[in-house]
Amino acid sequence: MNYKSLAIIFSTVLTSGICFAQTTVVEDFKKSETTQQGKEYPQVNSEGRVRVQISAPEAKKVQLDIGAVKYDLVKDDKGIWIGESAPQDEGFHYYQLNIDGASVPDPSSLYFYGASRWGSGIEVPATDQDFYALKNVPHGEVREVHYFSKTNNSMRRCFVYTPPGYNENTNKRYPVLYLQHGGGEDETGWASQGHANLIMDNLIAEGKANPFIIVMDNGTWARPAQAPAQGGQGGRPAGPWPPEGWADGFKNTLLNDIVPMIDSNYRTLADQQHRAMAGLSMGGMQTRVITLANPDVFSHVGMFSGGSISTDDISKSPNFKDKVKLLFVSYGSREIENPRAGSADPKANTEALKQAGINTHFYVSPQTAHEWQSWRRSLKEFAPLLFK
Amino acid sequence: MNYKSLAIIFSTVLTSGICFAQTTVVEDFKKSETTQQGKEYPQVNSEGRVRVQISAPEAKKVQLDIGAVKYDLVKDDKGIWIGESAPQDEGFHYYQLNIDGASVPDPSSLYFYGASRWGSGIEVPATDQDFYALKNVPHGEVREVHYFSKTNNSMRRCFVYTPPGYNENTNKRYPVLYLQHGGGEDETGWASQGHANLIMDNLIAEGKANPFIIVMDNGTWARPAQAPAQGGQGGRPAGPWPPEGWADGFKNTLLNDIVPMIDSNYRTLADQQHRAMAGLSMGGMQTRVITLANPDVFSHVGMFSGGSISTDDISKSPNFKDKVKLLFVSYGSREIENPRAGSADPKANTEALKQAGINTHFYVSPQTAHEWQSWRRSLKEFAPLLFK
Repeated sequence: MNYKSLAIIFSTVLTSGICFAQTTVVEDFKKSETTQQGKEYPQVNSEGRVRVQISAPEAKKVQLDIGAVKYDLVKDDKGIWIGESAPQDEGFHYYQLNIDGASVPDPSSLYFYGASRWGSGIEVPATDQDFYALKNVPHGEVREVHYFSKTNNSMRRCFVYTPPGYNENTNKRYPVLYLQHGGGEDETGWASQGHANLIMDNLIAEGKANPFIIVMDNGTWARPAQAPAQGGQGGRPAGPWPPEGWADGFKNTLLNDIVPMIDSNYRTLADQQHRAMAGLSMGGMQTRVITLANPDVFSHVGMFSGGSISTDDISKSPNFKDKVKLLFVSYGSREIENPRAGSADPKANTEALKQAGINTHFYVSPQTAHEWQSWRRSLKEFAPLLFK
Repeated sequence: MNYKSLAIIFSTVLTSGICFAQTTVVEDFKKSETTQQGKEYPQVNSEGRVRVQISAPEAKKVQLDIGAVKYDLVKDDKGIWIGESAPQDEGFHYYQLNIDGASVPDPSSLYFYGASRWGSGIEVPATDQDFYALKNVPHGEVREVHYFSKTNNSMRRCFVYTPPGYNENTNKRYPVLYLQHGGGEDETGWASQGHANLIMDNLIAEGKANPFIIVMDNGTWARPAQAPAQGGQGGRPAGPWPPEGWADGFKNTLLNDIVPMIDSNYRTLADQQHRAMAGLSMGGMQTRVITLANPDVFSHVGMFSGGSISTDDISKSPNFKDKVKLLFVSYGSREIENPRAGSADPKANTEALKQAGINTHFYVSPQTAHEWQSWRRSLKEFAPLLFK
């Protein structure tokens, strides 16, 4: 659409009184939690519409790109473009702007790592946002930790959440949850857009969860640089998806480097009964592979929008049934409504697992998709079940 | 310049063999420390030129904006724009792109808070970059801490660096440095683009500095929302710059909230002899005001590109001379070469302070300006002098 035709449409709207989508927009926009301090946009209204604004006087076309849809912005006489999206689900969404064909972050938003890049994110206020709000309660710490990994022969970084009281109760030891991000995300996600620390602080303050340590590392699997490109140790074997070797890169790092490093540097209860693993999406699939192969290492298992473990899986890992105390499986409701072709019904699978004697919990996040609000809620439901 | 004229110039260059600036560019560009993982640009060459690339097929004009200069990029036949800056000083610089009049972050860079916004930063490799490199040495932690401030009646955030050994040596207590950012920056700066944690880890590994805790908080002074807009407690008083009341907002938060919170949550040596304050630019000016008024609280003082303390100042704060064990003043060499009109000669001032019996250290960072490389180096010089 060129300028002239836009102007014609606009004139038509103004003179005829015909109303398009714009007129249905509720004008109660407010700045978002993810709007940069000192900036006026992005804003969100009570419908969950996201409104952005950017000065681009020489641009021909500017769009807001959110939820896989591009929305045209409209320019005023000062060269400032403004416009909004259709209503979005509650919670956090990645987005970007498109300026004359260039996809760029919104200069007014905070930035987050997801979709394999640092970029803009928007927080759409949720009816239940109180559970991850920053409150005047005792707070734990999120610690940035650098350590050497023998498996990767390199320095790595993880984030460690220590719960409120960790610094004061110097004789107390704590259980540990290893909590993984999804594909295209990294070790920063859970304590940034995931609010894992605030979720735990609030649960602990309300007496709903026992305090434990959370370790958030980078599970992105990459073929080691020194390995051959095809075949051999570094090559991806043929077979079912996810292939058997798929989680190995992170499995070895987790078991041989991360767990020993955590157990030697923090006051952990360093046994299977006090060690959990969970993850979202790709992190859930990694949790499946790693815990099925190592039921002597982990006792509590969580998979958020990351598939499930079947009775067939468990029959091939006999110690799993004896040793694993909890299997938690969750999805956003929109994932269940629109299951991928060929995927198993997770609810039916849960019932089969219960019948087989596995302590299985199934949770569905209302009206959310494969996004962070589903995973925040999953952690909130999962954490109170741990280490009881 | 429009498209056609650009094409004409290009044709002229190609046919005549006349060479403009481009031909002097050394083609040894490499990705920067601040290039996002998986992205190919931004890159930097051995001259310190910064080269950026962005796809913007419909754009008319794209520029790289760095060091207060805008450099035109050139578009190829696939709509990808590319170009580079003049050589930049060693170290870290903020920058942005301009696409048809819109100032936006480079979607391929990492992001940092400075110039009052989250935006792109570029690392130009420095001859002395080893002192802030991530190495396989014992590492401290950078802890994100949320706490309630009575002064501000709100939750606040700071980052606390605990040195290597802090978790293991559970009976050991440590001195504390309160380390402040500059104007338009925030509590994230020192442990991100400042690399304060890596500088300390390396100094401690080499036995050049005693381990101490560093507290990095947000010193941005804002009139409290409940105060009157003009006059009264919230109004800025008339008088010399910086005005007397200027640092009060942060001074009260620091002395009444932050220091007590740190002393009660960390194993500090909670006395004047083991407490230092330093800051860069605005943070240096705050250090001046706060330490002159409170020599019973701080024993070691650092001002990086943030002015100095004069013999006249000290004569008005008699306890300062008796109680303060170290005054460290530093600048980037380009700040000294081009002093602001009316500013005192810092070198002469240092000599006067020494004559007056103050243990004063003066440091000049070679060939750097009012930028992070000056402040990284300042911390490297300052830290070994502390708590001896």
